Amino acid sequence: METVAPPAVAARPRLHPAEFLLDVLRGVAQVDFMPSPVTGLVFLVALAAAGWQYALYALVGCAVATATAHAFDVDRDTVSAGLRGFNGTLVALSFAVFLGAGHLSTFCLAVGGAVTVVFVTSALATILGTWNIPTLTAPFCITASVMTVAAPSFARVWHSGPGLAALPQPASDTTRLDWTQIWHGFLANFGQIFFMPQWYVGLIFLAGILIASRTAAAMACAGSAASLFVAWALGSPSRGIAEGLMGYNSVLVAMALCGVFLLPTAWSFGYALIGAAGATALTAAMTAFFTTFGGHTFTWPFVLTALAFVAAVPALPRLSRRP
Amino acid sequence: METVAPPAVAARPRLHPAEFLLDVLRGVAQVDFMPSPVTGLVFLVALAAAGWQYALYALVGCAVATATAHAFDVDRDTVSAGLRGFNGTLVALSFAVFLGAGHLSTFCLAVGGAVTVVFVTSALATILGTWNIPTLTAPFCITASVMTVAAPSFARVWHSGPGLAALPQPASDTTRLDWTQIWHGFLANFGQIFFMPQWYVGLIFLAGILIASRTAAAMACAGSAASLFVAWALGSPSRGIAEGLMGYNSVLVAMALCGVFLLPTAWSFGYALIGAAGATALTAAMTAFFTTFGGHTFTWPFVLTALAFVAAVPALPRLSRRP
Amino acid sequence: METVAPPAVAARPRLHPAEFLLDVLRGVAQVDFMPSPVTGLVFLVALAAAGWQYALYALVGCAVATATAHAFDVDRDTVSAGLRGFNGTLVALSFAVFLGAGHLSTFCLAVGGAVTVVFVTSALATILGTWNIPTLTAPFCITASVMTVAAPSFARVWHSGPGLAALPQPASDTTRLDWTQIWHGFLANFGQIFFMPQWYVGLIFLAGILIASRTAAAMACAGSAASLFVAWALGSPSRGIAEGLMGYNSVLVAMALCGVFLLPTAWSFGYALIGAAGATALTAAMTAFFTTFGGHTFTWPFVLTALAFVAAVPALPRLSRRP
Repeated sequence: METVAPPAVAARPRLHPAEFLLDVLRGVAQVDFMPSPVTGLVFLVALAAAGWQYALYALVGCAVATATAHAFDVDRDTVSAGLRGFNGTLVALSFAVFLGAGHLSTFCLAVGGAVTVVFVTSALATILGTWNIPTLTAPFCITASVMTVAAPSFARVWHSGPGLAALPQPASDTTRLDWTQIWHGFLANFGQIFFMPQWYVGLIFLAGILIASRTAAAMACAGSAASLFVAWALGSPSRGIAEGLMGYNSVLVAMALCGVFLLPTAWSFGYALIGAAGATALTAAMTAFFTTFGGHTFTWPFVLTALAFVAAVPALPRLSRRP
Repeated sequence: METVAPPAVAARPRLHPAEFLLDVLRGVAQVDFMPSPVTGLVFLVALAAAGWQYALYALVGCAVATATAHAFDVDRDTVSAGLRGFNGTLVALSFAVFLGAGHLSTFCLAVGGAVTVVFVTSALATILGTWNIPTLTAPFCITASVMTVAAPSFARVWHSGPGLAALPQPASDTTRLDWTQIWHGFLANFGQIFFMPQWYVGLIFLAGILIASRTAAAMACAGSAASLFVAWALGSPSRGIAEGLMGYNSVLVAMALCGVFLLPTAWSFGYALIGAAGATALTAAMTAFFTTFGGHTFTWPFVLTALAFVAAVPALPRLSRRP
Repeated sequence: METVAPPAVAARPRLHPAEFLLDVLRGVAQVDFMPSPVTGLVFLVALAAAGWQYALYALVGCAVATATAHAFDVDRDTVSAGLRGFNGTLVALSFAVFLGAGHLSTFCLAVGGAVTVVFVTSALATILGTWNIPTLTAPFCITASVMTVAAPSFARVWHSGPGLAALPQPASDTTRLDWTQIWHGFLANFGQIFFMPQWYVGLIFLAGILIASRTAAAMACAGSAASLFVAWALGSPSRGIAEGLMGYNSVLVAMALCGVFLLPTAWSFGYALIGAAGATALTAAMTAFFTTFGGHTFTWPFVLTALAFVAAVPALPRLSRRP
């Protein structure tokens, strides 16, 4: 006679603290798709170069999200790869940048947001999993948009004076790009994924990517260059280009569509460049949209472009998903 | 020799008027998830306490939606449980509240809206059924948002002078809560699900829930209390808290996530409280969003929070859906 | 011993130029659901009656999209039916109308947009295919909305002075309709699907539909008449009604719900009229929504109404999808 043991939740081996730390570092690195603890460390160094509080928020956000996922027994392989931590990193960091890192209210919200984003991720994973589409940074975008749009309605959260809501206006600044702006913008595109406009911070991020994958670093550069060209050609004000505001989404799109989710081929390279160009236009559109109610663009343009372009692959036989 | 009878639509037994009336009362009760005709009656009494027209609109909206579902041969068990009526209740009632109950145009729109919302519900049921996610009040939110945003463009529908569209502003009113505001807000949170700010109306609604389910009433109270605390802690203006505007979504979220759709356990209780807190922030965010084009928040925050938190359950082994 | 030949992408027979031209003409006709090259030609004549540039943009947009679909090896039957071209037609044409047909920047964007819309279509086809829901003009709406909302942020793209973003205002113009406005509006409803307000252009479009299908033409007329009545009854300003701005979505909804996607029956006829009425209200709502950030309504109201009403069919046994 055989008996079947019940699926015992408590039977899972306990998590070693060192293992947990590695999960967290992989989570920080997964913001740029890299499941490498070393890359995560380099990313924290990059953030510290902009301000130690930013590195702290990124680390705490990732740790809280990873711990939440463990507490609710999320599939351990998924968590170990850092895939339940990176949205927490970005949520906590975005609160630090947009609500002020020095306020206790911001820290409490960062912890709460990092818990919540795990559930949002699980929800999107259930739904998008139907078509084998990854959730990307959509959970971060949702959670951070909600809180930053809500913030001015809460007196103990909002310390920034008047709200940000305004009617979008046509571009009126100069569109002339000089050489310094070009290379600053090229590097800032890597840093703005983590909300940082400094060129040297972007350079450290690029180094972190390069440590984990040469293809990914190459595609990050291709995406950055493509967005620089498209933004200039369309006539985007040069100040925003130099701060990386027009290109960080294209960096992620290019990496996602050629190497990370699709096999790197000549066809997927062209596809990635079209996606990078589209993400540049989408960045301007979403910025106009969010302006009216005081929201931020975050990585929404990357999320929407990459979701669509990955979802399209089964109908486009020239392209293949990575196994 | 065998013949196969065609699936005869007309062969269904006719619906008895008393049965139809019970379906409609269950529909009114289903706004708060309770498939109980007695609860439906109590809810109508609560609305009549605020104004007899409101009870009338709620009844007519539910009757029209239920009749439409029967006419199009929607699955009878679904309709009998009140699940095709409650969105009609809310659509008709919202038109009465926001377009003026005394206008003939409002009444005609309420009937038209209650017909339309049945099709919207069927559409969402098809799509969300893929993941076994309930449609909640999403069909109401969609239909009512469309009509209230459209209303100022129609001279024979809009009797309220200037439009509502404005840029959202940061909170500037006082955030001090006195004792009266606390208990008023606690009860108004139940009434605002039906757009009613009076504390005694909310009390009757709570009584209606209690008649059908003690767990549901307890979770409704927990959700209301959680949102009171979160709204106060974040610094929401006290006037809105006292009118129940910050908490009605949390009431529904707490009921949905601990008892109605998830088995009530310690884990789902905590999960429901996190959801209730999240819904409070989402309420402020969506209010800012809708302000720019003159829309209302309705139960969008509940719908989005509960959809996400229910969709997440398969990925969170600590939680279980109700069979 | 048997060997299995690999699925050779290159083995597909080359496409004959005449065949390609027919695919493109069918694509132009598919804007109104008609897979007929003759109808496509008549539509181009209608556009040329409004301005030769419009016919050119429509043709180029459709050709670029069809060629892109062939290049990425999209299923040939789908492309031959014109189903990967019609969104390209609308994207290119909308850029000509809203960004100025005479600018080189507009032409380049039209080509880029027609390439991109193929990928957006493939993505939506993957996702909506789960429920056997067609993608309709959603890919066009997405792509054109992104670019027209983004345009004012780009100095080399935007040649129209101040932006369009404004707070929506209640209707204040006269709502009296005279006979000329009624028949102008009835015909303009067909032309506005292609952004053209002239009654005679609308008449040629109706002739093009009639050539391909009498049912479709009859439903187009029914949808146009229904929207005229609903817009008048609700009190929409007469100027917009006469230019076809309140009714073009209802024309498409009525065709889609009675004949194109659903079997034409008395029930689906009534269903189509309810949909046409709903689309009229949705048109006003979406116009208010897009006004705040300078977007256009395009055929969003048709897309959303028809998606919902088609998705609802499996739950409504009175209605049947076309096989």
